[in-house]
Amino acid sequence: MENFLSDIEIAQRAKMKPIKEIAEEIGILDEELELYGNYKAKVSLEILKRLHDRKDGKLILVTAINPTPAGEGKSTVTVGLGQAFNRIGKKAIIALREPSLGPSMGIKGGAAGGGYSQVVPMEDINLHFTGDIHAITTAHNALSAIIDNHIHQGNQLNIDPRRIIWKRVVDLNDRALRKIVVGLGGPIQGVPREDGFDITVASEVMAILCLSNGLQDLKERLSRIVVAYTYDRKPVTVADLNAQGAMALLLKDAIKPNLVQTLENTPALIHGGPFANIAHGTNSILATKIALKLADYTVTEAGFGADLGAEKFFHIASRYGEYKPNAVVIVATVRALKMHGGVAKDDLMEENIDALRKGFVNLQKHMDTIREFNLPFVIAINRFHTDTENELQELKQLIEAEGVPVAISEVWAKGGEGGIELAEKLITTIEENEKEHSELYSLDDSIEAKIEKIAKSVYGADGVEFTSSAKKQIAQFSKRGWDKLPICMAKTQYSLSDDPKLLGRPKGFKITIRELRPSIGAGFIVALTGDVMTMPGLPKKPAALNMDIDENGVIKGLF
Amino acid sequence: MENFLSDIEIAQRAKMKPIKEIAEEIGILDEELELYGNYKAKVSLEILKRLHDRKDGKLILVTAINPTPAGEGKSTVTVGLGQAFNRIGKKAIIALREPSLGPSMGIKGGAAGGGYSQVVPMEDINLHFTGDIHAITTAHNALSAIIDNHIHQGNQLNIDPRRIIWKRVVDLNDRALRKIVVGLGGPIQGVPREDGFDITVASEVMAILCLSNGLQDLKERLSRIVVAYTYDRKPVTVADLNAQGAMALLLKDAIKPNLVQTLENTPALIHGGPFANIAHGTNSILATKIALKLADYTVTEAGFGADLGAEKFFHIASRYGEYKPNAVVIVATVRALKMHGGVAKDDLMEENIDALRKGFVNLQKHMDTIREFNLPFVIAINRFHTDTENELQELKQLIEAEGVPVAISEVWAKGGEGGIELAEKLITTIEENEKEHSELYSLDDSIEAKIEKIAKSVYGADGVEFTSSAKKQIAQFSKRGWDKLPICMAKTQYSLSDDPKLLGRPKGFKITIRELRPSIGAGFIVALTGDVMTMPGLPKKPAALNMDIDENGVIKGLF
Repeated sequence: MENFLSDIEIAQRAKMKPIKEIAEEIGILDEELELYGNYKAKVSLEILKRLHDRKDGKLILVTAINPTPAGEGKSTVTVGLGQAFNRIGKKAIIALREPSLGPSMGIKGGAAGGGYSQVVPMEDINLHFTGDIHAITTAHNALSAIIDNHIHQGNQLNIDPRRIIWKRVVDLNDRALRKIVVGLGGPIQGVPREDGFDITVASEVMAILCLSNGLQDLKERLSRIVVAYTYDRKPVTVADLNAQGAMALLLKDAIKPNLVQTLENTPALIHGGPFANIAHGTNSILATKIALKLADYTVTEAGFGADLGAEKFFHIASRYGEYKPNAVVIVATVRALKMHGGVAKDDLMEENIDALRKGFVNLQKHMDTIREFNLPFVIAINRFHTDTENELQELKQLIEAEGVPVAISEVWAKGGEGGIELAEKLITTIEENEKEHSELYSLDDSIEAKIEKIAKSVYGADGVEFTSSAKKQIAQFSKRGWDKLPICMAKTQYSLSDDPKLLGRPKGFKITIRELRPSIGAGFIVALTGDVMTMPGLPKKPAALNMDIDENGVIKGLF
Repeated sequence: MENFLSDIEIAQRAKMKPIKEIAEEIGILDEELELYGNYKAKVSLEILKRLHDRKDGKLILVTAINPTPAGEGKSTVTVGLGQAFNRIGKKAIIALREPSLGPSMGIKGGAAGGGYSQVVPMEDINLHFTGDIHAITTAHNALSAIIDNHIHQGNQLNIDPRRIIWKRVVDLNDRALRKIVVGLGGPIQGVPREDGFDITVASEVMAILCLSNGLQDLKERLSRIVVAYTYDRKPVTVADLNAQGAMALLLKDAIKPNLVQTLENTPALIHGGPFANIAHGTNSILATKIALKLADYTVTEAGFGADLGAEKFFHIASRYGEYKPNAVVIVATVRALKMHGGVAKDDLMEENIDALRKGFVNLQKHMDTIREFNLPFVIAINRFHTDTENELQELKQLIEAEGVPVAISEVWAKGGEGGIELAEKLITTIEENEKEHSELYSLDDSIEAKIEKIAKSVYGADGVEFTSSAKKQIAQFSKRGWDKLPICMAKTQYSLSDDPKLLGRPKGFKITIRELRPSIGAGFIVALTGDVMTMPGLPKKPAALNMDIDENGVIKGLF
């Protein structure tokens, strides 16, 4: 890699246009733009009123095979594809999640693309950006303070302090805050109870912000959040506490999508970043909706592989956003498929056609999945410089043998130029296949039936087992009328199964549902197949300890 | 009060100018301005290089008598005075602290002026503003995570988890977080220990940001923070952990002062808001320095009464900022002096000349104090509509009998127009008294001597008593070389003594120092006369529960 420029070096050489110019080119009016410096801006939601009657452009969802430590580069392909559309004269907008600050203090490397397919200004995007995540942290923790204060001041709602499910959040990797006891110090300091912090992107407020269609919808969703149960096991909501107004007020700017640009000046709306396990893992509905009104082609991505990200995109995000993807890109790499075929990470440099063939089944399953959803798709082979020509050709042939369009993406090394083949194949695919995605379950299905349909059709499982406590929860949830919501699966991203070690395309397995969590405000029931880490820790040598900024503002160690 | 408009109603009728225009008028270049929307901007520190050789304008410090529940309106006078200077053709800038979000969720009422002397846009200033406080929260808590991670990963520095003095922070009133236990849940979750959260404005990072002369100075101060002691009682600093680079990086934008305007379009730099008890309670040095380069008259304020705010302004802020105030305004009200004279809050509506005369001694003591510092001053009687003409004239005569210039300020009701007399008297006073403030102690004095000089000269105490644990700490601090720093007194603001119930001008009392805390990064030793509340709680009916925002963005309940 020694001859390549680093991401930050490439980004620092970028010729950014003033964001006002980017906005003007794509059709955002001056009065719809709130500048945050010269290269970032928020877009007013008024734009959706102005463009209400305009026809939506095409929506392309970028998803991937099951991720491996080899790296797939889904975001890089997303950014590069947007740039490619622009190169061939199409109006394109990229819609992406905003990165959490916490993890970048832990492990070096920012989010949002790489090589010649990045969004900029990357240091701002990876630090405080326009403050959205801080606003979410504040709204979330204001609610926490209101809950504890309510109990301290007499507990009129009869909240059981042992049954508060609303934890606190911080946008940092902070292991020591996972499990804590609050309210210590005697009667003046409140009521002692067990508590814990999640990382902010795991907050239901984040999921809500991303699934809201406007300020009013946001407030209604906030009011439905279940924060605790009473001593007689009745759910207590934000509406019961009357905190939704203050929370919405704290989110009044955070709800507006952020406009930035790529290295090639393609507009990018970066907004919202919900977890892809206990939440739905895609950028805000509002960002996608604005993009659809402005662009011929909107390129967006969903978290993890198609088994998690794409499934939730179709069942949750598209449902609440009321938009219809026109085509899907499945990103695969030679390296990752070789890992699915049994190669260890350290041996990836060697050509291994057998392993590639063996691992190809993982991609095949995701192709089958998108077929289940009835959508056309193109495979993007995201080229790494270590891939051999033999490997690339072999993979291409394997895909073509299925009758599926495929393009080798070189957007990391070449920017938009390296994605033109992919863009053109997508245009053809969309023109030849005017389809609407189908959903695999109906909201009227029971919680069990929904989960079973996902497990069988998307994961290839033989069936689902529910632990006895999960069964008890399902009964409770159904009694409360929560069974008509879509399901948000929290499963390992590394395998189609719930065992992270089963790579490739495992068969003959069952999924075990251990626990359900109500995200009634966001509008889904989380089904957990195992423990989900909602507060990461720092590694032995945190990246933060190598970070620096000098007197002239030059940054070191962030990427 | 029913015929008056509320603060928010007045603010909403304000004709704001685009902040670019305000900046241009005062001499800030386009490239030195970073817009946050149309009405807020950050000012680049580059401006101090460009204007390095320009002579500073005049600096006016607004302080007050000891605060009472009657309200003094120090910020209102500060804003109104700035407006008055503009009205009479002088270039003026107001430098103020930025308000903490937490308290506004608790008790209705924003910060930053009132009536026709307010800074705007007030809803933004009182919510997230430009994100400075969120950045401070993040930098502070990133350090916390690094400390706990260091211990978890082997504790090479030999930190004693029972002797970590670096707590966590949140910008909310959250009683339940005052005393907590973190690191629970077994060996994977870290090392259990006692901890607690302060409100962010009490963070040493806030004090450091406000006392720094630039990014490099900021980083050096951060590196000197003492976070803990080892098992053999040696101080552990941020430099030992090597976290200063990441912290400075997280503060790279927060360190730039924020430009807004008053209702009459007078420029205001609002930047930094350190606590006025365990910290020094005044806006950032950088904001004041920039204002001094740009304006003929810079009007700034210090927290609480002259016994705390002004004393710290002269001994801490002016020292590190290397600037020299030219005059002081002491704000007094008829109402507050009547309370100092023994009237209960509910009886303030009745005329009471006797009580006014009796309470005047409080103002007299603060006049004596400013004389000790060798600076000229003007008394501003901040008029309330309930004051009688008799009371106002009586107070005026009492002041004039001392040979001190006095003006009745009507800036709340009349804006800048109501402050012209005060502005003109200040101009004359400054012209006739070209003085430099003296300091009451030398840095070479011992910790005890410094505290005694403050207690005797500023509080009028007979002496100081040190508890045995305070004496032990002084010995330790001196051995570590920390005794050459200025002192930051943490005393009740309500009384000149350390007993909040002793109003007026108490005599024959001693001050008791119970504890000392090292703020080595900020550059002072905090001397506590009693418990200091560094994490407020919410009241029974938090203001947050009446807040709302509607679909059109109209805000309710914030002010």
